[in-house]
Amino acid sequence: MPDIGIIGAGTAGLHLALLLQQAGVPTRIYTNQTAEQIASGPPQNSVSHHAPTVARESAMGVNFWPVDEYGYQVHYHHLNVPDGPPVFRGDFLRPSRVLDYRIYLPRLMAEYEERGGTIEQRSVEPADFEQLARRHDLIVVAAGKRSFAEYFGERPDASPYAKPQRHLAVGFWDGVAQTEPRAVTMSISPGHGELLDLPITTFDGWASALLCENVPGGDLEVLMTQKESSDPEAYRRLTLEKLKEHHPTVFERIDESRFALMRPGDILQGAVRPVVREDYRTLTDGTVVLALGDAHATVDPVTGQGANSASFEAQVAADAIIEDGVVDERFAQKVALRRRERVDGLSTWVNTMIETPTPPHLQKLIGAMSQMRTLCDEFTENFSYPHRNGDMVATPARVDAAIARHAEIGQDPTDAKAH
Amino acid sequence: MPDIGIIGAGTAGLHLALLLQQAGVPTRIYTNQTAEQIASGPPQNSVSHHAPTVARESAMGVNFWPVDEYGYQVHYHHLNVPDGPPVFRGDFLRPSRVLDYRIYLPRLMAEYEERGGTIEQRSVEPADFEQLARRHDLIVVAAGKRSFAEYFGERPDASPYAKPQRHLAVGFWDGVAQTEPRAVTMSISPGHGELLDLPITTFDGWASALLCENVPGGDLEVLMTQKESSDPEAYRRLTLEKLKEHHPTVFERIDESRFALMRPGDILQGAVRPVVREDYRTLTDGTVVLALGDAHATVDPVTGQGANSASFEAQVAADAIIEDGVVDERFAQKVALRRRERVDGLSTWVNTMIETPTPPHLQKLIGAMSQMRTLCDEFTENFSYPHRNGDMVATPARVDAAIARHAEIGQDPTDAKAH
Repeated sequence: MPDIGIIGAGTAGLHLALLLQQAGVPTRIYTNQTAEQIASGPPQNSVSHHAPTVARESAMGVNFWPVDEYGYQVHYHHLNVPDGPPVFRGDFLRPSRVLDYRIYLPRLMAEYEERGGTIEQRSVEPADFEQLARRHDLIVVAAGKRSFAEYFGERPDASPYAKPQRHLAVGFWDGVAQTEPRAVTMSISPGHGELLDLPITTFDGWASALLCENVPGGDLEVLMTQKESSDPEAYRRLTLEKLKEHHPTVFERIDESRFALMRPGDILQGAVRPVVREDYRTLTDGTVVLALGDAHATVDPVTGQGANSASFEAQVAADAIIEDGVVDERFAQKVALRRRERVDGLSTWVNTMIETPTPPHLQKLIGAMSQMRTLCDEFTENFSYPHRNGDMVATPARVDAAIARHAEIGQDPTDAKAH
Repeated sequence: MPDIGIIGAGTAGLHLALLLQQAGVPTRIYTNQTAEQIASGPPQNSVSHHAPTVARESAMGVNFWPVDEYGYQVHYHHLNVPDGPPVFRGDFLRPSRVLDYRIYLPRLMAEYEERGGTIEQRSVEPADFEQLARRHDLIVVAAGKRSFAEYFGERPDASPYAKPQRHLAVGFWDGVAQTEPRAVTMSISPGHGELLDLPITTFDGWASALLCENVPGGDLEVLMTQKESSDPEAYRRLTLEKLKEHHPTVFERIDESRFALMRPGDILQGAVRPVVREDYRTLTDGTVVLALGDAHATVDPVTGQGANSASFEAQVAADAIIEDGVVDERFAQKVALRRRERVDGLSTWVNTMIETPTPPHLQKLIGAMSQMRTLCDEFTENFSYPHRNGDMVATPARVDAAIARHAEIGQDPTDAKAH
């Protein structure tokens, strides 16, 4: 069996390493952070693991946070417009789970090591690849840092934006009551951005991960530009004020007296430019360097898909390695083919979601979702199969087809609002 | 639902039409031959339907020839070299079936019509596509004639040969005793070509489809160049003489007094150049014209894969049509992505099999198959998943990896010969 060097200990790298370890394929992980550094550092994200990812965790024996205890299965949607529809709901077929990555990643790193894996703390740069290729038959780059992104290069056909389309702030907040049933709430303030309120399990129990996806130049952009660390109390008050105006169905669940970050510094502020990169490169000795997860594609977190993409890509790569036992360019092309529909389809979806102004056909779809329970359920379930939402929103004709398909089923609008 | 025009009533066209018909998608088939003309015409091929194709037939409700009665599950292999290995065997996990297409196609055409489908007898040319696009939302070209091949154009990266690599003759013969158990025999006469002896069900019961894949310039080429119709008895004697010398394990099962074509004219002589073509084109009004089956890829019949490819491609296209209900260019790209690994992988396999002289790494694989039962079983089962054999034979390193993988399992050579 070939020997695989994996750079990065995020979901892509760890899931690949665990899958290969189960199959008896030798691996080594290189990462610039120890598990302890991750655990004591800032939040990593607010990503949800959807059912296919959770199923993969079960298969790998690392589903330590069962979804019946830690999960949710419902999306609530709210449009903050005058005379807009009431909150409308979509259901998953199987539960998802949000967990603080400062818990998740160290636990998986420990498991990999307990099973005999080696994690080497080392900062790797592209200049080191030739040397690593003397130790490994394949190099998998599963970390999103800039030098790796530049190494692989962008696919212009799948990278439409020259700069980030949302200015982000995500904090883990106490004092936000959970919905009943437990759910993710998506609140849209047209022209200003989206708020995702996610039920996350942290070191100190349940919290709300409030992911503010703010339109550059809009009224909410300040939630990214005003740094929380420079005046935490001012930022807390600013957040309350902005939520009250733009995201009222989340605000109304807040107990202002308790509203605070779970721990000081439990917030990320920044922005992400969505990019899909080339799948792989080959070194002069023929060794393949494969891009995986964030190194391969960066998506705006508005639909919370990064970790699910990373895990999916890890499965594709592991399958191809295990099938052939040969990690040549044919292998790399196989990986590229097998993940392209999903990766590109996810990009289509997310890049449509964050287009400014919101395209009329996406507005039409959201309006229809508020009236058609089964359409909203399909859109929700497709968080597990995000390319399907890419197919749905890709063109006005495709939105019309989706609406027509659900109109045929027959809808009870009362049910859509109440169920 | 979109309306689909299908040109061609072979496996690709009929399977697509039946799959769409089951899903309530309107279709119409255009073909230049009636069912009666097919039934009374010359043989079409000697193709085997492997388990995934048979399973698809069952799902479509057209598996009228159950494999427990009409099928086989074993491959015997013989190398006609001095001191070569004894005949060695590979087993399928599930049975395959060979049936005279003059029975198969008319029966499926009748079924499609009984279920409400329309088959229009009409010769279509590319110049007619614009007119057909006014009646249909998508045009699927599922016929391999030259004008369609030229319309789509070749993919040079997947079409390595400028001319056919084998000169073919396939006849349906009486007087060839079946093996016990019933099996396909592959006899290889190095430098001269392959013989496939397939147990086929004809109008008159069991026969042997003897597919002679003759190397141009070799001693067997005459089986293609000497036309059977010009002197049937001379051709019959020539066949016996050549089989005796080059394919003795088939010859020894022949009763010379009974050896004859099942019906006069039950033979095809010709040659096929392997080509993979572009997936689709779009008309000026945006309508997609999708290549399917023979229109998309032509393979040498040495591994008997054409119908299985056609059926697989029909499933891919039907799935994509049914999923989205929109047959735009995004749909066509989805079809292209989903079938590429299999179509290109099949080409890799077949084009390696017919390379002249036989590449050393393929010789090495066949030699190893004669010694390793599990390797020969895998190669055999991969007739159901032909891209996997493409992966196996693509490079010398990949052949070595396959052999090493099976060496680890541990082999009993006695078992390989006897089982």
